[in-house]
Parts: sequence; structure tokens; C-alpha cells
Amino acid sequence: MDRAALFSLIRQRQSFLCVGLDPDPERLPASFGGDVLAFNRSVIDATRDYAVAYKPNTAFYEALGLDGMRVLRDTIDYIGTDHFIIADAKRGDIGNTSRYYAKFAFDTLGADAITVAPYMGQDSVGPFLDYPGKWAIVLALTSNAGADDFQHTLQDGSDEPLYEKVMRRVMAWGTPDRLMFVCGATRAEKFTELRRIAPDHFFLVPGIGAQGGDLGAVCRHGMNKGCGLLVNSSRGILYADDPGRAARELQQQMQRALEKFLPEVS
Amino acid sequence: MDRAALFSLIRQRQSFLCVGLDPDPERLPASFGGDVLAFNRSVIDATRDYAVAYKPNTAFYEALGLDGMRVLRDTIDYIGTDHFIIADAKRGDIGNTSRYYAKFAFDTLGADAITVAPYMGQDSVGPFLDYPGKWAIVLALTSNAGADDFQHTLQDGSDEPLYEKVMRRVMAWGTPDRLMFVCGATRAEKFTELRRIAPDHFFLVPGIGAQGGDLGAVCRHGMNKGCGLLVNSSRGILYADDPGRAARELQQQMQRALEKFLPEVS
Repeated sequence: MDRAALFSLIRQRQSFLCVGLDPDPERLPASFGGDVLAFNRSVIDATRDYAVAYKPNTAFYEALGLDGMRVLRDTIDYIGTDHFIIADAKRGDIGNTSRYYAKFAFDTLGADAITVAPYMGQDSVGPFLDYPGKWAIVLALTSNAGADDFQHTLQDGSDEPLYEKVMRRVMAWGTPDRLMFVCGATRAEKFTELRRIAPDHFFLVPGIGAQGGDLGAVCRHGMNKGCGLLVNSSRGILYADDPGRAARELQQQMQRALEKFLPEVS
Repeated sequence: MDRAALFSLIRQRQSFLCVGLDPDPERLPASFGGDVLAFNRSVIDATRDYAVAYKPNTAFYEALGLDGMRVLRDTIDYIGTDHFIIADAKRGDIGNTSRYYAKFAFDTLGADAITVAPYMGQDSVGPFLDYPGKWAIVLALTSNAGADDFQHTLQDGSDEPLYEKVMRRVMAWGTPDRLMFVCGATRAEKFTELRRIAPDHFFLVPGIGAQGGDLGAVCRHGMNKGCGLLVNSSRGILYADDPGRAARELQQQMQRALEKFLPEVS
């Protein structure tokens, strides 16, 4: 799915919602008797009309033990081809090694995209960016408290924090049709600057809901003419009394944002 | 295995060799007929007297498909308890998620340590550091070319590059009995400074052999009174005509380094 196809899906569903499929074994509703695949299927069935993307985080499948990746693959199979699928794995290693991580996420699991950690630089990110027809989503400004430890530090005597340096440098390695950035909704005040740096790229935005990010501010400052946003909700949907209703409410907020900021789209 | 036990093992074997168990499917000797576990067993049998640690990289097991982690678990079982076992996974995510990565590496796979990427800060590293009896090995200065993209940039107008900031900050989160740093042998000229920053910590040192790092320089500048080094070789041993001989030659070089720099040990 390239950028145009993703935007087309957003227009069609009037939504840029990404549902984070992070089934925490300690929070699974008792009615599923520990059957994570059944739980995922119920969430997917309830949300598929309101979402354009799903984002399973690999850690929650490793939590299931040695067969966890089979549950993840079956989950991705169940989603099918009408959604953009992100393996949230935050991988990154020297080139030949990253190539095998890419192969697993894209070929074995069947994801469209994978999240990538930038610390090891170009030869660690390149093998994900160079995979035919697939996407790399590189961590820029994350939504967690620990983002303050390294991401905001100014680089080489400039006024450029590390996350901006990451964005500018990584943008030179790939096109907006294959590259997104993770930009946390808890940093909504930064989105004007983030959008100035990367006017054409999609941002994957975690941090609304449980983490307190403001969807309205993210849309106001972060939307571009191709929408340019995939806003993720995990816990706020998965553990809602009614996941379908929680997803529909987010979709309706997103529809209003599209009407307001991209009137030609709705 | 705590720091004292690891040093005791180094003294006993007169070696600080870590063997990287990275079975590249494209380079597996034909005689194994694609049986990665059999290949690993043969390498382990040939090298176990000369090594103190093994470091399987998870990417090469994901490369085997959905059952790859079973091969990794069986490999770790085969190594047994007389070696320090590092899951080279370069993980890192928000706290609750990192906790499940830790659980998988330590409980499901049975590793003693896991490599961790620092970009997301304290709440992403903490769950690995806080795991009872286990180790986190945090990326500081890596051995690949891409290390130049971000790790060397000076921070906040100081003369402190990012990798030094990472080391200083992460050191405040754990003790030398549970925390190591990845410091690449291709940066041997930096080891005097690295050792000044972290006098007591073990460094996991990739990059000798195929990547061209200098073992002698690493030992001269990097050894501390508890050895403080685990030097890794992957391809140089795995794909040697005689892996046992390749490991023994490295062990002999390491024995000479211990005699030279830690005479009270040998």
C-alpha cells in the first residue's frame, strides 16, 4: 500500500485511526479464557469499519511464549488486505541483521510497515527502507517520559534537538512513500515544527487516550494535504467496555477534523 | 551470573571470548542441510572450552520463520549454565512493553542478558535493568558505519558526544553488576575515554574479525581490574574452516592479554 492508496483509504473511511493490537496477558477479559487470537478477532470485528490501520506490538506476542509469533501471523491474516498493518517492533541492527528483521516482519508476518529505532544510523535503517513495497516508521519524538532523556538534547551547538536531526537525516535515505516517523501526541505543541521539517511524510502518532495526548491539537498542527496522520489508540479501545463504540467515537472525531482541515476530502 | 561469577569464569578459562551465534541461512555450510540447531551445536561443541559467553542475535532466528524462536531456545538449552548467554535483540519500548520483551528473553529463552537500544530513555531501559538476576547491555558506541550518523554528535553545546551522554545517564539507573555497554572494537582509540567514564562496567565489544577491530588495542585501553571486557566474534568463528581452531586462537590471544594486563589473574 503506497501513500496514495493509504490516503484513498482515509478518504473512504473518513478516518485515520490506527488500532494498537497490544493484548496484555494480564488485562485480557476473562471471557476469552486466555485465547489472544479470539480476543484480537473480536476487537478487529468491532473496529474494522472505523480503522485504516492496525498496529500489533511484537512484545505482547513474545509474551505468549514460543508460539506467540504464530498468533501474530494469524492475527495479521485475519485483518486481511483492507487495512495498513504495522509491526511495532522498534528494530534496528547492522545491515545484514536488519535485513532479516525486515524479511520476518514483511514476508513471514505479512506486515506493510515496521517501526525502527534510529540509534545505529543509516546501515541499520536502510534495509527496512529498501524493502520493495514496504514502509519503515522511524522513531523521532516518542510519547513516553523517557523521551526527555536523549531526544530533546541540542545537537552540535545548534538549536536542533536530536529528534529533528533524526528526521532530517533519515529523510535523505528514503521517500515519503516508504518512510513515516513516530511523533507522540503528548508533544502536540511540537507538531507545527515537525510538519515544517517533514511536510509530506505520514506521522504515526501514539499517545492519545491513556497517555493523555490531545487529538485536536495534533490535527490542527500536524495534518497535511494528504492527511499525513495515523493516530493510534491501543488501551483506550482494547479494554473499553465496548471497543467498537470507542473506535467509532474516535472515528467521528477524526471525520470532524478531516471536514475542518481538509474540506475537499470529506 | 553476577559480575564476580563472570570474572571467575574468565579467570578459569583464561578467556573473555563471546561467540556470536548468528547462523545466516545464506551462509550455512551445505553439510548441515539447513539444520540450524545442528550447526549451532557443532559450533558450541567446538568452542565451549574457549568461550565464556555466547551471543545469539534474534534476527537470525526470526529468519527461520515462525519456529525460529524454538531453535533459539533449544540452542540456549544446549549451551547450558557454564556460559553467560546474551540475547542480542536490541529491544526498547515504553515500560510495560519492555517488561514483556524482558520476560521473553530471560524467562522464555533463558538468556542471562539482553542488548537494549537507548533512544526511548529510562522507562524503556528500566524494565531490563530491574529484572532480578539478569543484565541489560545498552548500546553506547556501536561498531557499524552508521554509528557516525547520531552517536558522535556533541550534546547541548558541550564536548560530550551522544554515546557518552548515554553511558553517563544510563549508569545512574543501574549497578555494574547488572549493566554493560556495547562499545565497538572498530573505535579502539576511544576505549581510554570509555573506560574513564565507566571504570567498573563490563563492555561487550563487537567488531573484531570481519569488521576490522584491533583486539590488542581494545585490551590495552579497555581492560579493568575485573577484566571488564567480553569480546565477540561471530562470522570469524562460525564460517571458519575450523571454528574450534579459530576460537582457540582468539582464546590464546586473550590469555596473553590477561597475562600482560592482569598478571595477578593468570
